[in-house]
Amino acid sequence: MTATAPAGVVDRVRDDVAALHAELVRYGLVVWTAGNVSARVPGADLFVIKPSGVSYDDLDAAAMVVCDLDGTLVDGTRSPSSDTAAHAYVYRHRPDVGGQVHTHSTYASAWAARGEAIPCVLTAMADEFGGPIPVGPFALIGDDSIGRGVVDTLGGSRSPAVLMRSHGVFTVGATARDAVKAAVMCEDVARTVHIARQLGEPLAIAASDIDRLHDRYQNVYGR
Amino acid sequence: MTATAPAGVVDRVRDDVAALHAELVRYGLVVWTAGNVSARVPGADLFVIKPSGVSYDDLDAAAMVVCDLDGTLVDGTRSPSSDTAAHAYVYRHRPDVGGQVHTHSTYASAWAARGEAIPCVLTAMADEFGGPIPVGPFALIGDDSIGRGVVDTLGGSRSPAVLMRSHGVFTVGATARDAVKAAVMCEDVARTVHIARQLGEPLAIAASDIDRLHDRYQNVYGR
Amino acid sequence: MTATAPAGVVDRVRDDVAALHAELVRYGLVVWTAGNVSARVPGADLFVIKPSGVSYDDLDAAAMVVCDLDGTLVDGTRSPSSDTAAHAYVYRHRPDVGGQVHTHSTYASAWAARGEAIPCVLTAMADEFGGPIPVGPFALIGDDSIGRGVVDTLGGSRSPAVLMRSHGVFTVGATARDAVKAAVMCEDVARTVHIARQLGEPLAIAASDIDRLHDRYQNVYGR
Amino acid sequence: MTATAPAGVVDRVRDDVAALHAELVRYGLVVWTAGNVSARVPGADLFVIKPSGVSYDDLDAAAMVVCDLDGTLVDGTRSPSSDTAAHAYVYRHRPDVGGQVHTHSTYASAWAARGEAIPCVLTAMADEFGGPIPVGPFALIGDDSIGRGVVDTLGGSRSPAVLMRSHGVFTVGATARDAVKAAVMCEDVARTVHIARQLGEPLAIAASDIDRLHDRYQNVYGR
Repeated sequence: MTATAPAGVVDRVRDDVAALHAELVRYGLVVWTAGNVSARVPGADLFVIKPSGVSYDDLDAAAMVVCDLDGTLVDGTRSPSSDTAAHAYVYRHRPDVGGQVHTHSTYASAWAARGEAIPCVLTAMADEFGGPIPVGPFALIGDDSIGRGVVDTLGGSRSPAVLMRSHGVFTVGATARDAVKAAVMCEDVARTVHIARQLGEPLAIAASDIDRLHDRYQNVYGR
Repeated sequence: MTATAPAGVVDRVRDDVAALHAELVRYGLVVWTAGNVSARVPGADLFVIKPSGVSYDDLDAAAMVVCDLDGTLVDGTRSPSSDTAAHAYVYRHRPDVGGQVHTHSTYASAWAARGEAIPCVLTAMADEFGGPIPVGPFALIGDDSIGRGVVDTLGGSRSPAVLMRSHGVFTVGATARDAVKAAVMCEDVARTVHIARQLGEPLAIAASDIDRLHDRYQNVYGR
Repeated sequence: MTATAPAGVVDRVRDDVAALHAELVRYGLVVWTAGNVSARVPGADLFVIKPSGVSYDDLDAAAMVVCDLDGTLVDGTRSPSSDTAAHAYVYRHRPDVGGQVHTHSTYASAWAARGEAIPCVLTAMADEFGGPIPVGPFALIGDDSIGRGVVDTLGGSRSPAVLMRSHGVFTVGATARDAVKAAVMCEDVARTVHIARQLGEPLAIAASDIDRLHDRYQNVYGR
Repeated sequence: MTATAPAGVVDRVRDDVAALHAELVRYGLVVWTAGNVSARVPGADLFVIKPSGVSYDDLDAAAMVVCDLDGTLVDGTRSPSSDTAAHAYVYRHRPDVGGQVHTHSTYASAWAARGEAIPCVLTAMADEFGGPIPVGPFALIGDDSIGRGVVDTLGGSRSPAVLMRSHGVFTVGATARDAVKAAVMCEDVARTVHIARQLGEPLAIAASDIDRLHDRYQNVYGR
């Protein structure tokens, strides 16, 4: 593959990524300019990502930027998101990943602030995450630390979401839409399990039932 | 009754069910494609239900699907909701039920995750539910377990809502609108009682007062 | 005064009351058809109130109903709110009250469920309520019990809001707009003080400072 | 500098301040008429601020008022916000401040009600605040007490936000937009850290890492 792609393909990905950012707003996962979605450009060593420091009101397709898999800007009039290096690292090391999302969504970030994995105590969580949502290391922005923490942590889990310690959530998917779904579901279960825990201990779901639910959801439901 | 109905009747039920899905969104009871509403088709052994895996933005009347009381697709271009078997079971065993709702709404699901009934400590809860909102069994999707759990649990209660353990809420009503109302009120009281309990014990309402409130509301108010 | 009024006056009050119901929705104080606003008709022994069991989407001026001070329907095509008797009692016993609001707003109702007054630990609460928001008795709907509980409890307080035990909030004001403001502020402070209390004890404000804040706000600010 | 400015400059500031008030509503930082934004007029000893007691629906550019640095009304048809004296004090003593925001946003005010600083346990908090968000003194409205409390407390901190005890939040920025961003981020981290603390202790971030994050964000990111 190469670092070029037909303009029509890139334009379609820009449209998708712009539209998916609106889902982060709709589900209350982001404030101000925080958070970002990226998508791999099919057939090229490129991805489309949100520019840095731009209001969600102004995030149309034209505002999106295109980077190569080293995170270098290839096309676009603005600087790429400050999380671009993390996205690039994940695309380089996970060829199956076609889209990513990063947010500081409230309840998931609260679990991350305590460095505590979210236990799998809801059937919807078994469906989507196949077990607990794991915690990755504390990592400073500026090099490959965050990307490496995401890849390493996801490698030991069926979950498409990881809680980066003291920071927030990263999710991956075969497509950017799948990654956005994982980000929405991650916050939803982070909130429900938090609230359940406030007044006692949620009941466990047997590991075999989690397996059965996850297998059915991933292989049968809506596919 | 039969598994056919005049097209005009089915069309009206499709319209109703599509519009009622928007109420789930308005009251924040659902995220992404989770949750569903169904309604029995008057005069036929059929019900209308949400298709599987479709965004709430795209849930117009035409997207709804029609099933018979075994849960088999009779009309529609998409697969029925993965919860269709549960709805079908309830319609077969509860001829008085004309509509159903299923959600993973946050506070109700938190009580369900602890397997704890919501105590009746608010007059609005006495009005609508006539007592605690009960907890049904843990049940896997894929056969009649969920439907049976819903029917069995509601059979021992005046509540139109049941919290299915580790899962979420099912509500029933004479009409789909009544079931949606029960789902909205269930989340509302689940939230208020949760918050009350965070800082102490809510005061009990005498059983005789619960009876009086429930009787008045069901037989006098707005009927 | 009489139980008649110029049509133009009644029409203006209907407009106001309809518009104020939209504020209850905007601030998330109500779900489904719960809650109501009423306003006294100037120069007549009448008030305008919400009809019973009507969706907030359909609450235009024409839907509102007019009652006399015994709570008897005088004009309108629908039944008055089931809380009409309570509003009527308050208008009969508090000639200074020009408007009222009743809601089951979440945080205020949680304090009401515990039967606990909200302590005055925020300057905004001193401004609007002049002290704690008091708790009224448990009272069943159907006679003057609720209205009497509201009047008796407010009589011993500077607060325009009362938490009726196990039920919800009633607020009063010189105008219906003032009563809506009190309902909005009541839920706002009920929420903030609840959240403050979750992690420790809010600091007290000296009684003399509460007096000074309340006096300034009621007599100087925006009047 | 003088207490006059070209009309075009003032008009542009009025537009900005009106638009920024809409951000307070969008992010749920204010109810009813509470809260306010102000902005210094470039090249003049003036600032633009919200009028007192006006609904957020009616806050267009024309409704804004212009004051001199003593807080005296210079232009506008309404009374300035009752917090004008505090804003004026800050502009007089902090020439680097170009904009300010005051809110009673829920979670930040809950920390303020306990008189407790928000610990810096999130990377986004290190970025924006460079450490804990500090608590200022209890101060009554009506003289320079609040403004002095804000200036004194911010003087000992890198944070652009201060929690005024038993009251709410004040934020400052080089521009009014920066101050609004600080108010939005303050409530966001107040909420996330509160929720983290509900189920245990958030993990500390090393002081040197907070320094590195803050330095990078203030000097590199988006500037």
